[in-house]
Amino acid sequence: MTDDWKTYRDRCAIAGIGATEFSKDSGRSELTLASEAARKAIADAGLSAGDIDGIVRCDMDRVKHNALAGALGINGLTYFSEVGPGGSAPCAMVGQAVAAILSGQAKHVLVYRSLNGRSESRYGAAIAPDSAGEIAKFTETGGFGSYDEFFTPFGLMTAPQTFALLAQRHKIQYGTADEHFAAIALTCREHANATPHAQMHDKPLTYQNYLDSRMIASPLRLFDCCLETDGACALVVTSAERARDLPNSPVLIRAVAQGVAQGVKGGMMFPVLTFDDPLRLSPGHVAKTLWKRAGLGPEDMDVAQIYDCFTISVLLQLEDYGFCDRGESGPFAASGAIRKGGSIPINTAGGNMSEGYIHGLNHIVEGVKQIRGTASMQVENAETCLVTSGPIPTSSALVLRRD
Amino acid sequence: MTDDWKTYRDRCAIAGIGATEFSKDSGRSELTLASEAARKAIADAGLSAGDIDGIVRCDMDRVKHNALAGALGINGLTYFSEVGPGGSAPCAMVGQAVAAILSGQAKHVLVYRSLNGRSESRYGAAIAPDSAGEIAKFTETGGFGSYDEFFTPFGLMTAPQTFALLAQRHKIQYGTADEHFAAIALTCREHANATPHAQMHDKPLTYQNYLDSRMIASPLRLFDCCLETDGACALVVTSAERARDLPNSPVLIRAVAQGVAQGVKGGMMFPVLTFDDPLRLSPGHVAKTLWKRAGLGPEDMDVAQIYDCFTISVLLQLEDYGFCDRGESGPFAASGAIRKGGSIPINTAGGNMSEGYIHGLNHIVEGVKQIRGTASMQVENAETCLVTSGPIPTSSALVLRRD
Repeated sequence: MTDDWKTYRDRCAIAGIGATEFSKDSGRSELTLASEAARKAIADAGLSAGDIDGIVRCDMDRVKHNALAGALGINGLTYFSEVGPGGSAPCAMVGQAVAAILSGQAKHVLVYRSLNGRSESRYGAAIAPDSAGEIAKFTETGGFGSYDEFFTPFGLMTAPQTFALLAQRHKIQYGTADEHFAAIALTCREHANATPHAQMHDKPLTYQNYLDSRMIASPLRLFDCCLETDGACALVVTSAERARDLPNSPVLIRAVAQGVAQGVKGGMMFPVLTFDDPLRLSPGHVAKTLWKRAGLGPEDMDVAQIYDCFTISVLLQLEDYGFCDRGESGPFAASGAIRKGGSIPINTAGGNMSEGYIHGLNHIVEGVKQIRGTASMQVENAETCLVTSGPIPTSSALVLRRD
Repeated sequence: MTDDWKTYRDRCAIAGIGATEFSKDSGRSELTLASEAARKAIADAGLSAGDIDGIVRCDMDRVKHNALAGALGINGLTYFSEVGPGGSAPCAMVGQAVAAILSGQAKHVLVYRSLNGRSESRYGAAIAPDSAGEIAKFTETGGFGSYDEFFTPFGLMTAPQTFALLAQRHKIQYGTADEHFAAIALTCREHANATPHAQMHDKPLTYQNYLDSRMIASPLRLFDCCLETDGACALVVTSAERARDLPNSPVLIRAVAQGVAQGVKGGMMFPVLTFDDPLRLSPGHVAKTLWKRAGLGPEDMDVAQIYDCFTISVLLQLEDYGFCDRGESGPFAASGAIRKGGSIPINTAGGNMSEGYIHGLNHIVEGVKQIRGTASMQVENAETCLVTSGPIPTSSALVLRRD
């Protein structure tokens, strides 16, 4: 064991990817969706269900690993785990797979996320606690911030509301304006328009449409918010060595990182509002760890898939991951740097905002396509890709690269 | 990466252990209990909170990692994950820590389990679904078996009921009798009587007491069932290399294993009843993986901590892990082989049945004490210890050994 992360770089790879259709009403169960995405990922890796010996799930996924293993006919799992919370998980889930493989606990690990996020449990909905006792219990044990006794009584109960306050702060502190937020929404949409499978493929978006869209939580408008989607994604992770014997060119996992914002005392989302500086979330820490582990920096990335629950979350991460200076993300985004042909094209399939909201696992699927050179809106000769998950008190990220 | 697990053996160690008082009514929150156990484990390892960079929790723990990190003043976590379900988790949680360390994602990993299992959520209670829709949803997505549409309508809703059916089958198939089940209960109690911190320390148990105890779910009596306990346990896992620089002799993690029973289609407990042979649960698979990884067998173990939710679960595992032949566990247990001085003393602090029910994490704490030579009922010169977690459709296990 060494403290130098060099020994862990590029030792694992993503060998297979799979996804269902992204829709507003799948008409199918989350288990059926998970099974379809998983079967596709396993087939894409040139493997069969019998080869899978590890499964990693997201803590918010209602499909349990045993159910998925049963549906797929997987027997002989030697590793299973979960990680969360929610949108913070996808890159960390790959981190789990890497850990399982590098510690000899599994050889081929299936990673999945499945949700009927529109037709069943809508992710934008407010979660009201059942009782004062329940608020206290969840607050005390560090449950979802949604139940937090400091926020719920004042009507602060949804993700858009939290991020709206961060957006407001960014406006005041750095002069960030409508056109800066819009740059994220329009870029994601433009990239979705070039991506046939994206939910918003056929729906162009203009700046005027953006301005005209209804206010959800000021200053966030409808088009500052991600989609709610029914669908599933899956990956197969294995060692780089094994991946080289499989049909697709291995997409190497250069480095993974997870982190928590300084001073977090529990909770998922709202606690950030209690920070001395609420704009300093976890990605700053994760970025530091990630770049050090990868031995690479933002200047080395050819493309990036940045977790986009809201436009403000992308702006903050462009700063945190070092693509621009602190406070400069608005003008940076509006400069076109994040569009195809720019210095760092982001969310090249449309992201959570316009491709579909598979809680960010779709970002990794798209990252793999970019490195393989098979994306619908391919960044020419992309060799390196940053993917990030969940810019809240906890988050994770990874760097993919061509073999 | 090699398929030979030799390269992973003994690379990590448990450097610190901690536990609270085990009681029926802690009068304190689960976060407070978790904090106390964690602080003790960190101090026992000769570390401070600032050294901890990874946390692993059990999926059923209501204390979230951010809350515990906040309470302890841990900043800079680079790894956090969870594993389940419930009592299947403890050894797998150590497996998670090993994976984090061997993949360079953390250096000192805190593993904890905290529950007010008597004064708050009683673990023996029936869980009734709220509606037919909820039954269907949980069944379909592989939730807890408790909600299973095939069992709930018939009143099959608790863990003791499930294990009672397995015990009945064992009786019919192998002639297992009252004195055989009692041998487990009496052995655990005897060991607890020699262990001052055990909940049942001051309460001797005779075979007549056992026979006189009330029937819970035939053939399981009260004393065939584990305790419900308020309390917490914690461990600090690090590399063997680092552990050698810390105050306590490292307790090496020889091997870890996780597994799922053949043919599981989801669910936590009841699905075993649908198996062709419901006595073939997951430990058979886990044992095979574990002994292969460890390069050791049951004959090499000096002591064992065997997950004892019910007496029948111990009998089944004595067979699965190879301490006796199939069907022979009853007479084997009654022979005294599992008592102090026997060939494989088990649950040397009293286990879940008589020490306390910290969902099995207490078994690992006791295993560490045995290898250190500091247990209350010390097995002379114990150099190797098997620990198992959760003999249901999923389970895990590990082998500890002296450096």
